[in-house]
Amino acid sequence: MKKSGRALFALLCWLSVSSIANSVAALAQDADTSIDANAAVRSYVEQHKPAILKEFVEFLSIPNVASDTANIRKNADAIERMLKQRGFHVKQLVQDDGPPVVIAEKSSDRKKHTVTFYAHYDGQPVQKADWVRDPWSPALVIDSKGSDTRLYARSASDDKAAVMGLIAAYDALKAGGVEPSVNIKFFFEGEEEAGSPHLEKFLAHYADQLATDLWVFCDGPVYQNGNPLLVFGNRGVTTVAITAFGPNRALHSGHYGNWAPNPIVELAHLVAKLRTTEGEITIPHFYEAVRPLKPSEQTALKNLPNLDAQLKDDFGLGRTEGQGSVPEQIMKPALNLDRIEGGGYGPNPANAIPISATAYIDFRLVPDQTPVIVREQLESYLRQLGYFLVHQAPTAAERKEHARLLQLNWGAGYPPQRADMDAPVSQAFIHAARDLTGNSLVIIPTLGGSTPAFLFEQQFKETVITLPIANFDNNQHAANENIKLENLWNGIGMYAAIYSSLGKYWH
Amino acid sequence: MKKSGRALFALLCWLSVSSIANSVAALAQDADTSIDANAAVRSYVEQHKPAILKEFVEFLSIPNVASDTANIRKNADAIERMLKQRGFHVKQLVQDDGPPVVIAEKSSDRKKHTVTFYAHYDGQPVQKADWVRDPWSPALVIDSKGSDTRLYARSASDDKAAVMGLIAAYDALKAGGVEPSVNIKFFFEGEEEAGSPHLEKFLAHYADQLATDLWVFCDGPVYQNGNPLLVFGNRGVTTVAITAFGPNRALHSGHYGNWAPNPIVELAHLVAKLRTTEGEITIPHFYEAVRPLKPSEQTALKNLPNLDAQLKDDFGLGRTEGQGSVPEQIMKPALNLDRIEGGGYGPNPANAIPISATAYIDFRLVPDQTPVIVREQLESYLRQLGYFLVHQAPTAAERKEHARLLQLNWGAGYPPQRADMDAPVSQAFIHAARDLTGNSLVIIPTLGGSTPAFLFEQQFKETVITLPIANFDNNQHAANENIKLENLWNGIGMYAAIYSSLGKYWH
Repeated sequence: MKKSGRALFALLCWLSVSSIANSVAALAQDADTSIDANAAVRSYVEQHKPAILKEFVEFLSIPNVASDTANIRKNADAIERMLKQRGFHVKQLVQDDGPPVVIAEKSSDRKKHTVTFYAHYDGQPVQKADWVRDPWSPALVIDSKGSDTRLYARSASDDKAAVMGLIAAYDALKAGGVEPSVNIKFFFEGEEEAGSPHLEKFLAHYADQLATDLWVFCDGPVYQNGNPLLVFGNRGVTTVAITAFGPNRALHSGHYGNWAPNPIVELAHLVAKLRTTEGEITIPHFYEAVRPLKPSEQTALKNLPNLDAQLKDDFGLGRTEGQGSVPEQIMKPALNLDRIEGGGYGPNPANAIPISATAYIDFRLVPDQTPVIVREQLESYLRQLGYFLVHQAPTAAERKEHARLLQLNWGAGYPPQRADMDAPVSQAFIHAARDLTGNSLVIIPTLGGSTPAFLFEQQFKETVITLPIANFDNNQHAANENIKLENLWNGIGMYAAIYSSLGKYWH
Repeated sequence: MKKSGRALFALLCWLSVSSIANSVAALAQDADTSIDANAAVRSYVEQHKPAILKEFVEFLSIPNVASDTANIRKNADAIERMLKQRGFHVKQLVQDDGPPVVIAEKSSDRKKHTVTFYAHYDGQPVQKADWVRDPWSPALVIDSKGSDTRLYARSASDDKAAVMGLIAAYDALKAGGVEPSVNIKFFFEGEEEAGSPHLEKFLAHYADQLATDLWVFCDGPVYQNGNPLLVFGNRGVTTVAITAFGPNRALHSGHYGNWAPNPIVELAHLVAKLRTTEGEITIPHFYEAVRPLKPSEQTALKNLPNLDAQLKDDFGLGRTEGQGSVPEQIMKPALNLDRIEGGGYGPNPANAIPISATAYIDFRLVPDQTPVIVREQLESYLRQLGYFLVHQAPTAAERKEHARLLQLNWGAGYPPQRADMDAPVSQAFIHAARDLTGNSLVIIPTLGGSTPAFLFEQQFKETVITLPIANFDNNQHAANENIKLENLWNGIGMYAAIYSSLGKYWH
């Protein structure tokens, strides 16, 4: 299979799950003989790829949409089994009717700092029709050179790769006889893609059992050029569905067009007032809450390789929004229009004025914006534009009474989070990572994805650092999500490097 | 059933098809004893309601979406049977792979004018999920007072009511022993809702067999207050699907939001440049081709009852677009946004930047606009705005090359049509109708709906008058289409009045 040519690869040589371990065995290389901890880990990984993949594939085979309660529990049970096999003390803790959070730790050494590694085992909802294979029937695709081998499954990258990688890194260190430099704790949650509705209460409720000196968020993709990455913050997010209203029944556009108000046109004009086609948000005062960058953050941005030309080409884009590179644009807030619903559908829908239309918007936030601030700014602007706002379906009387009426439904939101890059723990973390990566390590002040990191910062007042391992082109949140195996192997090495070295630099 | 109270009616007392005839028998009243032709027709209708409805229900039970070739043929065959039973000479004529046009006539009298009545037997596509009952299982709903009894089915109004009504009017006249004042011909087509793609060629091909002195278009709803209506023109229509492009795969809006261009935002800004929320079209030169109204047309508009307040209340609207009443607004062109497709779907779609988005637009045209003129104006404006236009899916290279790229797909269009209200045939028609209706007759220069009337005007250079009978609130083109029975009975009376009296006033 490894030797199949380009033409054969173009046919997508999918392997069945059962054949994955055998196929990957062929990829294993001779053990490295270096004697330091990182080399020992690398050697372990090289020798144990089939076993690691076998365990990962079994884990990925359990459906994990947050709303699928029964399967979510199976995922938590699987993680508990995997950790107990390694001698961890494991608990499944639950807040109200939320999914289990799997908490695990080894016996702790009071002389060492304690580090808790966060990941989530739930995944984004799927549209199965868009997937080449079932999202929970993991499939390996090996290219002709064996250089871009990927495992396809929901959460292969986001975020079961982190759960698997953290466990495998522990195995690797133990096999090499290397003592961790910090006390290791795990925190694996099951509702991140649903907005972690129970997490804030959970952290307050179980605060005693969750004491730690550092949170490491293991989620998200590495830098777009494949270089390893440390992230000191995340964009926040808040979503809103804005509905405009037309007639109370769909009307023939010939008989009533340009008399009965068209709610999709209303939304189109509204969207045009909220942001430009260059990504600039035109809601008054929107940028006032944005915290200026520190000198160390500006330096980190300047040092980033500029991958814009490559990305633009890769994504087939004729232009990009705004003036900045991707990392520069990510430091600013964003308003994304996910879709506009309303009107007919199918190949030959009627030409009609629809009853209503809804624009689904997500805001991406940066410090010191919060979902509450954005909500106030947007609603204040909409009122200023003459709209009457409601937060549930308007009555017929309200629809008649208000010439400009909008219904707003706000989703769960995350504030942004950004740790101090100059803090001793941050500097120690950078050193430990650089021991493994050398100068290839990329450091960015804010990653685009949103995580519940802010809740940990808020509850425990400890630093939160994000350590992603997935390939950037992983189709995260979309169909045919995947992880490059190279990223999984490198990720295991990175986790192990933090386990073994962070404590040495952290005083 | 007639005596059921409001509460019972609120439950929607659907009747099965088989019970319709019996139920309606209860609605029949004593025969009118008036001896004039119109009174004879009225009497006939009163006595034959159950039989007419039975035949109509059978006709409505045949599915009739234009793309459903097999069923379209069944509809044509049913019409042929119905007409042959009445002694008409019937032909099914076909152009290329188009559906049959059913042509029918009685032996003609050379001393009389010949009038051809047009209707279409195909219906709009359906979304069955939106219907209370199957669109082709006709159902009668009788209110507590028997004053708003309706038959629900696809094409109950648009436009099988006309086919049935024209045939029943012939029966009524014959039963009353009244000789038609004109030679009657029928022309029933089967692809109107699909844009009549074969009709232009058909009319040229069969021109000899279609010779006539007047075309009467039996389609559309009566005036919104229920008054009988004559229409001397129709808005034209042309549709366009405009697609904008984003990245070549959906991208996480956190990682790429406000860097990767969002195609829905692009379309929202574009729509805002094409028209205002007041219905005004802002495409340069758009109104230049609009023909000013004649004095007789202006007078007709002034004489129309203003129903805006009632309609606004009925449709539950908080405002209307533009400054004019419905008939005034209908005299202007319109740009309607049917829907914007693109992005996620379902209750929990991903927050992503979509690959593309498409705005489905229909333009409603008035004389002397044409689809060709509108296409040139829109495309010229889009180019002026900096867009590169393609008319088929762009290549990856085109997407990369052009920062602003749009794909335009134009649908089949109809130019608008407007007959001379001052012509002798028009005046005769108004007189014949007024004999039946008195001053309740409403005359409007242009109806909102689009019909292929212009093709007949263009081919035969004869006057085309539109004579609608359906209730205005018939859910035409939408789910739960229906006809009020009162409109069916009145429509039969109107058709019979034209048969019996038009020739008397037309010199």
